[in-house]
Amino acid sequence: MPSRLAGISEKILTSYEAVGGLNHTDRHNLPSKRAVDSLCEQLLQVLFPGFHDEHPIHKNELAETTRIRLEALAERLGAQIARSIRLNDPKATDENAAEVLLRFLDQIPAIRELLRTDIQAAFEGDPAATSDEEIILSYPCLEAIAVQRSAHLLYKEGIKLLPRMMTEWAHSRTGIDIHPGAKIGPYFFIDHGTGVVIGETCVIGSHVKLYHGVTLGARSFAKDDRGQIVKGGQRHPAVGDFVTIYPNSTILGGETLIGNGSTIGANVFLMHSVPVGSLVVYEEKQLRILEKSKPATELEWSI
Amino acid sequence: MPSRLAGISEKILTSYEAVGGLNHTDRHNLPSKRAVDSLCEQLLQVLFPGFHDEHPIHKNELAETTRIRLEALAERLGAQIARSIRLNDPKATDENAAEVLLRFLDQIPAIRELLRTDIQAAFEGDPAATSDEEIILSYPCLEAIAVQRSAHLLYKEGIKLLPRMMTEWAHSRTGIDIHPGAKIGPYFFIDHGTGVVIGETCVIGSHVKLYHGVTLGARSFAKDDRGQIVKGGQRHPAVGDFVTIYPNSTILGGETLIGNGSTIGANVFLMHSVPVGSLVVYEEKQLRILEKSKPATELEWSI
Amino acid sequence: MPSRLAGISEKILTSYEAVGGLNHTDRHNLPSKRAVDSLCEQLLQVLFPGFHDEHPIHKNELAETTRIRLEALAERLGAQIARSIRLNDPKATDENAAEVLLRFLDQIPAIRELLRTDIQAAFEGDPAATSDEEIILSYPCLEAIAVQRSAHLLYKEGIKLLPRMMTEWAHSRTGIDIHPGAKIGPYFFIDHGTGVVIGETCVIGSHVKLYHGVTLGARSFAKDDRGQIVKGGQRHPAVGDFVTIYPNSTILGGETLIGNGSTIGANVFLMHSVPVGSLVVYEEKQLRILEKSKPATELEWSI
Repeated sequence: MPSRLAGISEKILTSYEAVGGLNHTDRHNLPSKRAVDSLCEQLLQVLFPGFHDEHPIHKNELAETTRIRLEALAERLGAQIARSIRLNDPKATDENAAEVLLRFLDQIPAIRELLRTDIQAAFEGDPAATSDEEIILSYPCLEAIAVQRSAHLLYKEGIKLLPRMMTEWAHSRTGIDIHPGAKIGPYFFIDHGTGVVIGETCVIGSHVKLYHGVTLGARSFAKDDRGQIVKGGQRHPAVGDFVTIYPNSTILGGETLIGNGSTIGANVFLMHSVPVGSLVVYEEKQLRILEKSKPATELEWSI
Repeated sequence: MPSRLAGISEKILTSYEAVGGLNHTDRHNLPSKRAVDSLCEQLLQVLFPGFHDEHPIHKNELAETTRIRLEALAERLGAQIARSIRLNDPKATDENAAEVLLRFLDQIPAIRELLRTDIQAAFEGDPAATSDEEIILSYPCLEAIAVQRSAHLLYKEGIKLLPRMMTEWAHSRTGIDIHPGAKIGPYFFIDHGTGVVIGETCVIGSHVKLYHGVTLGARSFAKDDRGQIVKGGQRHPAVGDFVTIYPNSTILGGETLIGNGSTIGANVFLMHSVPVGSLVVYEEKQLRILEKSKPATELEWSI
Repeated sequence: MPSRLAGISEKILTSYEAVGGLNHTDRHNLPSKRAVDSLCEQLLQVLFPGFHDEHPIHKNELAETTRIRLEALAERLGAQIARSIRLNDPKATDENAAEVLLRFLDQIPAIRELLRTDIQAAFEGDPAATSDEEIILSYPCLEAIAVQRSAHLLYKEGIKLLPRMMTEWAHSRTGIDIHPGAKIGPYFFIDHGTGVVIGETCVIGSHVKLYHGVTLGARSFAKDDRGQIVKGGQRHPAVGDFVTIYPNSTILGGETLIGNGSTIGANVFLMHSVPVGSLVVYEEKQLRILEKSKPATELEWSI
């Protein structure tokens, strides 16, 4: 190795000692990003057989294919669950991880039933949707909610880190950021999706439709005596049944309730509750429509 | 296979029967996501030779390379077109798909001429752009519009599903969501791009510049007698020539026309038409700028 | 090759001649997108050893692994730096690129120190963050800022194109778009991230927290005598220390200064400076909350 490069390598090693960020204390305690990428793809194959495959699956191959895929998913997912558990508890045994794994896989049929309602919500909620196949094959919301509903079960088991890595994988692909802690009812549809943020302690009812850019987020953060942000607590809004929220609206706060059947217009900023059956919009009259040919000293800018 | 896993596998198979989502009735009728991923990459290589390649292409290799690539693209694209057609019409022959394919490939020069104008629009519209190479190699809007202009031709041929899968592929990579049905004029530029949504029935003129987060979307949806959303119809705005729309503005409605030469400011929510040469902004005076040191009981929150 | 396809191939070759976009004049002067994809992954492995790997790294393997990775990164990055330089100056020698490369690699420890502060900012700024591992493994902002801080050093060396390709790579994965020219202080945190845009000439202080959808962008663009946009110049805002900007706010302009310690609320559109310690929000009272059961002719839409 050229000597200058060797010198730089030494400085980097010194930096590793000084600045941290290295997993050398424990052989197997960090979930792997690449493994999460693979297991999410495998999970989607098991949830939607035939839709994420290169080649079609014949009916008479289905049982065998499913067994093979389930085994592969179980192996990879089990390993990452084990790592997540040991990250917090280095003395944890593999049995604990195995139990969590089996409980999770046992709920795959239940996840699929929820996804069935989500597909229906997408078809009914989007005039551009022409078929269920179109939704499963190309709608980003379905990928995002499939991963989140799955990660949510692991979150409820108390698994740290892995559920978040799964939803961030979906976030990277879809632009939809739903924390694994969020509780989401059936018939959930996000149209377009890019920019949606749903926080850890959100509770969302049934038949809720969101557009892109909608934030269900936290308000200012309580601090403890040392000035540190308090972790945990109910920080995010609750959204009732049959609510629609149009693009780019921001709704914040752990005490904010959006009543059943409400509609929130686009680009709304809301930090308090609204009753059942509300329609929340901005006053139209403060939009100024000016003719550019007229001199207007009050214009903010000219193009 | 461990017995508990075998039991879970059986339950999943039961779920497949009960909940659907399996392509077992027809061997070849579902377009493949992986194939669409590959054909979009191949298409970009053919549209922008030398820019999506690992190694440079020599002038004297160009003819041969182009023939090889065109054959590979034709094979893959033709297969996916055929699947899309048969999904709706299981009796369709391969000849129909072959004709659609050849008509599409025949328009690649025309697509490239439009993309030439889009590159020019990007260079002129962005002070940060220093070269055409920078635009082709790194600007997400170019990838998105290249895929959309291509998918649009297939959409006009009446192909279902495949065009949408292509634009959703671009959406995943760029955060730009343009439905293949949208009609977009030349010299089209989207700066930054993340969060842009352009709906199926949008009509956009020439020399239009959009910033990130801009939505050209549909208003509320008409419902038929059974309460179902009516599919189709003119639902999205029309944007004239030489229009600029700043970040995060939301413009909705099938009867909304943005007149030629207009400018829409940032974060505007607009659901009606504006005449030629308009400048649409919000009143500045409702922005409150408060000093945080002053007690303000009316403050919405404190940090 | 079928004759119709051969005819199309000929037309495409003609288009290549007529419409441009082909790198045939110089063998090695275009940076490769695929190479940039690889070198960004390698860079993240060197910056965060153990976090982007399939298998854990043992402490006694660390020195050897680091040397191997550094060599591989140096080779690939050096080649792309050389291409970027030669794109602007075909007579440039490899020595110039080698010098730039070594100066860059020499600063990896310094980049890591900054990233250490960014991780701390994320942990302190997000109640949902439970560990540093969670932040490094799954927070998109860390990937984006790691790439940007690196690309920024190359930008300051005067390298064109490659820095932009690196930040656009990160943009594609995270939805966060930060130009390599932006100067960003320590303890920088972007929560969620999707839709953030930070312009080329932005200056950002220390302890700044942004939420998703925040734009620090340019205002209208000055034009020269020929009507062409003037490139360069201070076009983007300056943000002081300890500033927090909530989701989807748009702040524009090269003369716009956000004073230290200020907070900008969500969905704000701001084009002028605010003093130290400001809180900038919209008037609440123009939000209309209507009961949907009441007839309201002034309603913009009904659902």
